[in-house]
Amino acid sequence: MRALGLLSATPAFAAVPELPPGSGTGKSVVILGAGIAGLTAGHELLKAGYGVTILEARDRIGGRVWSIRGGTRVEQEGRADQLCTFDQGLYMNAGAARLPTEHRGIFHYAREFKVPLEVMVNVNRSAAVDAGREIVPQRRAVNDMRGHIAELLAKSIDRGALDAELTATDKERLRSYLTDWGALRGDGSYRGSDRSGFARVPGGYADAGQELDPLTLEELMDHGTWGVPALFEETFDQQAPMFQPVGGMDRIAYAIYESLSDHVRLNTPVTGVRNASDGVTVMLESGAPVTADYCLCTLPGNYVARLDTDFSTTKKAALGNLFYAPSAKVAWQAPRFWEEQGIYGGLAWTEEPNTLVWYPSGDWNSPTGILMGAYSYDDRPAAVAFTHMTHAERFAISRDVIERIHPGKGALLARPLTVAWNETRFSGGVGCVWTDEQRQTAYPELCRPEGRTFFAGEHLSYVPFWQEGAILSGFEALKLLRARTAADRLAA
Amino acid sequence: MRALGLLSATPAFAAVPELPPGSGTGKSVVILGAGIAGLTAGHELLKAGYGVTILEARDRIGGRVWSIRGGTRVEQEGRADQLCTFDQGLYMNAGAARLPTEHRGIFHYAREFKVPLEVMVNVNRSAAVDAGREIVPQRRAVNDMRGHIAELLAKSIDRGALDAELTATDKERLRSYLTDWGALRGDGSYRGSDRSGFARVPGGYADAGQELDPLTLEELMDHGTWGVPALFEETFDQQAPMFQPVGGMDRIAYAIYESLSDHVRLNTPVTGVRNASDGVTVMLESGAPVTADYCLCTLPGNYVARLDTDFSTTKKAALGNLFYAPSAKVAWQAPRFWEEQGIYGGLAWTEEPNTLVWYPSGDWNSPTGILMGAYSYDDRPAAVAFTHMTHAERFAISRDVIERIHPGKGALLARPLTVAWNETRFSGGVGCVWTDEQRQTAYPELCRPEGRTFFAGEHLSYVPFWQEGAILSGFEALKLLRARTAADRLAA
Repeated sequence: MRALGLLSATPAFAAVPELPPGSGTGKSVVILGAGIAGLTAGHELLKAGYGVTILEARDRIGGRVWSIRGGTRVEQEGRADQLCTFDQGLYMNAGAARLPTEHRGIFHYAREFKVPLEVMVNVNRSAAVDAGREIVPQRRAVNDMRGHIAELLAKSIDRGALDAELTATDKERLRSYLTDWGALRGDGSYRGSDRSGFARVPGGYADAGQELDPLTLEELMDHGTWGVPALFEETFDQQAPMFQPVGGMDRIAYAIYESLSDHVRLNTPVTGVRNASDGVTVMLESGAPVTADYCLCTLPGNYVARLDTDFSTTKKAALGNLFYAPSAKVAWQAPRFWEEQGIYGGLAWTEEPNTLVWYPSGDWNSPTGILMGAYSYDDRPAAVAFTHMTHAERFAISRDVIERIHPGKGALLARPLTVAWNETRFSGGVGCVWTDEQRQTAYPELCRPEGRTFFAGEHLSYVPFWQEGAILSGFEALKLLRARTAADRLAA
Repeated sequence: MRALGLLSATPAFAAVPELPPGSGTGKSVVILGAGIAGLTAGHELLKAGYGVTILEARDRIGGRVWSIRGGTRVEQEGRADQLCTFDQGLYMNAGAARLPTEHRGIFHYAREFKVPLEVMVNVNRSAAVDAGREIVPQRRAVNDMRGHIAELLAKSIDRGALDAELTATDKERLRSYLTDWGALRGDGSYRGSDRSGFARVPGGYADAGQELDPLTLEELMDHGTWGVPALFEETFDQQAPMFQPVGGMDRIAYAIYESLSDHVRLNTPVTGVRNASDGVTVMLESGAPVTADYCLCTLPGNYVARLDTDFSTTKKAALGNLFYAPSAKVAWQAPRFWEEQGIYGGLAWTEEPNTLVWYPSGDWNSPTGILMGAYSYDDRPAAVAFTHMTHAERFAISRDVIERIHPGKGALLARPLTVAWNETRFSGGVGCVWTDEQRQTAYPELCRPEGRTFFAGEHLSYVPFWQEGAILSGFEALKLLRARTAADRLAA
């Protein structure tokens, strides 16, 4: 098997840094933030014998891993509070909501803490792509486009346009491939395929079904939104299969939390950090400062920027220009009308500001579910605008799109809830967006320890926005902490 | 919304034929076969008040829906019996194993009988495509091929090869689409993409990961197998998401069976059918014949052909040349080494005679699972040959392929089991393959009732091989039976 085979392309999990048992005995670490970075690092440090204290500003752990259930009060800066009134067993993943199987770190912890997983349907060929008055199921948009591309390339080959690139044999092989791949007819034309669905599906006896005319290339290109599913599902981090913990994305974070809750202080916002030669002092919004031999700061960079610290001017400068993306979700409780219509999970895409409609995975065919009616994120001006709209405006747009995709069903949407990370205290955005220039300058500076303070979080990784990035940056911090501890012991 | 929108392409479920309550009172139907066609039709007839008797040759219901568990003796014609020794909770779906969401009939019964469903992962971008010494993860095969196609088409456009088809505006729009869709560089070239994965995945701090060189077009075309995943997953009946009942595909059939088991006679092979003006007599291998007002025959056509009947010569001629495809599966019990390697469900494809390796969906991260090490079906000569090999030969080929994809793991495969439908009594093949010519001649003849005997089964549908075809052909039979019952009442 050659070097570029399966094994090298699904490389072994970059394992948890080995912290020998007892290696931390007598040493203490104060961890800032009980998100997934702080919890996983805390777990590893405890196993190595360190004294661990985790300071968490909120009354819950998880950070941007937040599964909201009935009874939760949702506070958003500058908005009236919302009270979640979902029925028992239902939840909205306001933040993280997907686990790609290539994210081996988060799967490692799900396995270690025996958190039940289930498939999160990320691709549904039956779900809609909505371009205003034009709504088609994704199988049509994806497969008709493929057919047209195959036809055009076959024609180009036949016309000799690629004779410089392709030998006669290659031309023949590629033509044959395109015929299968694009569902072309014998004459090389694309005139529709059952991959795009049917006007009437085939049935019993004489019912051979009724074919659909293909969408034309012009129609497909008129609606940029129709191209979205073919791209989205091929993004490395969005490829099938995707998973979720049964019962809410926060189940992994909470499983870790339950194992070390004695070490976590909730409702304890941090206001400052002081490094000294023999330890770190962390100042709190209220109460006595906390001291430890080391500090692991997993707070978002934009939050660290506002702390009162004695960090270097280089560090402070690097913290100065971080951009945390706005994002907003809208969730509805509703009877599962979409499943009655044959839509089981997946995403519908729209060009409206709410960006998508996300059908719940799990508890299939149960009476009620939480329908995500918006996940608008910093990629289009309309989506950014959505994150700054009033709650009523967000709800209205979301309901309108769902009504258009599922006529007559908009009235069934109830108990709406909306969360924008740009309006959520202690987060101030859904994730850190690095420019290429910042990756060369501010980023390496922020990865560097500051005295006895080490840093982790999704923003300090090349897997930004994901729990995986938080975990893997934590692994790098653990390696530095291990080395520093060993060095301190030698020097003592 | 225009007529070709979402609603028309995901048409309302062709509902169960309305059989008014009491419309069958005083009338009896003998149903031949307790597969999914016989069970669903029996359920509807009972609701309408008919007297129902279902005759089943085997000691189990389900027909080609067969989930084999520990303790089951597997009989194959011309082979030594096998005893399944899987651990409790494990099963092999020897026959039907997938539920596409567009199969609204089978979903209807899963819902009516409250059978819990879970996602069956049919596409896994991390799973392998095996072309002998060359093994790549599917994300590489699929995305590198897309990249090359996009590059070649972009070049063709730039060279004016498609000026007859595309306006200047269309050329510009399509070039832009291809850039996104194929992950092309600014100069229009495809030089790899993270969609195809990484040599080393990105991590924390400075670890930006390591890119992979793309597979060349020549390499991709050398291995026809590498094209399989891009085609398979777009087949209408194989499109995401796919489902399965929790605990085995037979759970739907058994849920229906439990509601009408008093009406089912197991171990009762049928040997003949006689139509008379006032009823039908069904002869049995042993015991007194069964009489009823009507008969619904859901047996495979090749089995009906061997019955002693008074059917017309036309019918008998039509039954004479049916082809039921051979197929064989191999299943292993094993610790879930594939999940430790990040493979959660899905299919790996091979050019070897076993065709595929199919990872189990559900019970994720549990210690043990059933790995399907072959599903070889009548599409390639090597696959057909597989269905006629000795059991030892099938096991050896399957183990070799799994060892090649997962080096060092072949030795973990235990308790093998193999089922070939061509060697399974009362089935004689996995499904009926119709030629285009037969669809015009034998097929409509076999859909036609014979006296008071009506017919159903996957073979009498345009959804052949699937439970859906069995159900929808049953719906057509029910319509005929309803009309015939009404006519008989008027005539009485």
